Amino acid sequence: MKTRRIVLAARPEGLPKPTDFRLEEAELPPVGDGEVLLEIQYLSLDPYMRGRMDDVPAYEQPANAIGSVMEGGTVATVLQSRHPGYRAGEIVLSYSGWQSHAVEKTDELRKLDPKAAPVTTALGVLGMPGFTAYGGLLNIGQPKPDETVVVAAASGPVGSAVGQIAKIKGARAVGIVGGADKCRFVREELGFDAVVDHRSSDLAAQLKQACPKGIDVYFENVGGHVWDAVFPLLNLFARVPVCGLIAHYNDLPPFPGPDRLPVVMDAVLMNRYRIQGFIQYDFADQRPDFYREMTQWIREGKVKYREDFVDGLEKAPEALVGMLQGKNFGKLVVRIR
Amino acid sequence: MKTRRIVLAARPEGLPKPTDFRLEEAELPPVGDGEVLLEIQYLSLDPYMRGRMDDVPAYEQPANAIGSVMEGGTVATVLQSRHPGYRAGEIVLSYSGWQSHAVEKTDELRKLDPKAAPVTTALGVLGMPGFTAYGGLLNIGQPKPDETVVVAAASGPVGSAVGQIAKIKGARAVGIVGGADKCRFVREELGFDAVVDHRSSDLAAQLKQACPKGIDVYFENVGGHVWDAVFPLLNLFARVPVCGLIAHYNDLPPFPGPDRLPVVMDAVLMNRYRIQGFIQYDFADQRPDFYREMTQWIREGKVKYREDFVDGLEKAPEALVGMLQGKNFGKLVVRIR
Repeated sequence: MKTRRIVLAARPEGLPKPTDFRLEEAELPPVGDGEVLLEIQYLSLDPYMRGRMDDVPAYEQPANAIGSVMEGGTVATVLQSRHPGYRAGEIVLSYSGWQSHAVEKTDELRKLDPKAAPVTTALGVLGMPGFTAYGGLLNIGQPKPDETVVVAAASGPVGSAVGQIAKIKGARAVGIVGGADKCRFVREELGFDAVVDHRSSDLAAQLKQACPKGIDVYFENVGGHVWDAVFPLLNLFARVPVCGLIAHYNDLPPFPGPDRLPVVMDAVLMNRYRIQGFIQYDFADQRPDFYREMTQWIREGKVKYREDFVDGLEKAPEALVGMLQGKNFGKLVVRIR
Repeated sequence: MKTRRIVLAARPEGLPKPTDFRLEEAELPPVGDGEVLLEIQYLSLDPYMRGRMDDVPAYEQPANAIGSVMEGGTVATVLQSRHPGYRAGEIVLSYSGWQSHAVEKTDELRKLDPKAAPVTTALGVLGMPGFTAYGGLLNIGQPKPDETVVVAAASGPVGSAVGQIAKIKGARAVGIVGGADKCRFVREELGFDAVVDHRSSDLAAQLKQACPKGIDVYFENVGGHVWDAVFPLLNLFARVPVCGLIAHYNDLPPFPGPDRLPVVMDAVLMNRYRIQGFIQYDFADQRPDFYREMTQWIREGKVKYREDFVDGLEKAPEALVGMLQGKNFGKLVVRIR
């Protein structure tokens, strides 16, 4: 059995180029005892993938090796099973990467019920991005009623969940996005209290107007110039869960001055900010709560989500690069076939 | 009744100069109903005082006004009382500032028992500095057995308590100080596991050697080049309670590049650091626990402390400036008379 796959061909410098990826065919190993053969239907594209392409270990994992399949979460159908708990035709969540087929052990698979929710939600609102929002916001952000929660990339799978969970907790949600169509979606469809376009020349002034009582929680997933607009508005005892810094993923130090660190640390001290990094699996024991609550919220219409589909495995590199530039609109998913 | 007092004469630029202070005599108001007349015995000098001299509100208080007495904690004897709960001769902790006498309302006084502990400890190990160590280390630092806790200014009232409480909690304590005599004191008298001189040309290398398993808690009270030595050694899930930044108190932005903020934020994310500012009164409800535990630890010899006395109110400005340069050795206290 063959798989069509995209491997890491070269380590990117800055924004990845087409030649950093290679589409190839490869022979799969035979399906061993206790293993399953998967036909991959959907591939999730996520910002963390850029970091995995660099030659540095990240999140306690070695880097994606050159010549190895690009890593990623997928939704797949079982074609053949040599495990008594799995049957052909079942649908699973699998970390099989950018390819059409895979042979997997079953211990890291999760069965999906297509009747409970569209299976692609396991890559978004009911998957890693949704849980990132839930874990970081509730454990570190801890929004209280009438507080103001700000999140960038607010039309994306993490940001949209952050704002909507903040609303459920009684807080005010303010989104930052790029472009008028995303502004409209976040304000009208997702029901954020306010939204600001980070491409505006007066982002800082607009954000200040959108946050008349300052910012109590800034869910940091972008960095860059958004941080500079947010920072002066942070209230006493503000919390900053740090979940991503997509604006910097293509940059390398040293960064030009001035040095902002002493100013930030002085404010951390005076205003008692809490700045804390996290990765969703730090809160793994809360996943059952997340699935239960998020499923309920979706059913009640309290959490909405948007998916952005791309057709064809060969389109994945271009789609990833577009995401790093903010071109996607909603959770980016590649339809493999 | 007259008081001799030191007022803020001018706002310092950088390190305070003698002309930023003025010694003067002033007539006290009459002792009103419910008030007491105090004769001040001891004045506490603390790093936060530098910040109070600038024309910016800090810690939710307006700046120390020009022409007003320099603020500060004191130990004083009641000379005259018009409050039924206080008698002449009693000793109290009072926030009366840099002066010889004061008329005070009683709601912010705390009676001291000279038999329970030397009264000057109410300015140090059993006072604001000790509680700063206790509150910040236990609430934010949360040291666990066998973890490594690093603190600078380790011979001072905050740092010495941080390291000794860390030891009580089963952690390894590593101190950073300036000078061989302080090194010896911290290692031999206070019982830290290791100590490093921040004046060494190879501070980073020495600190690395002193922390073979990295750093789990960095109690930040200095900033500056100590941070640069600590930062690369921080372990996954390290906690950084931010209590002071004395290295920067005389500096003003902008600071020359490179910009360290993106590098720090990237590490916060990847390694899930928690950087959190605090002020001891954020934990005010834990003061009873602190008094009880710290008194017990001192009695058992588990917490030792050192005081550095200066004689004469008129010496206070020079002593404050010396402290900002690291010249004091232990908790700095001015004997007023």
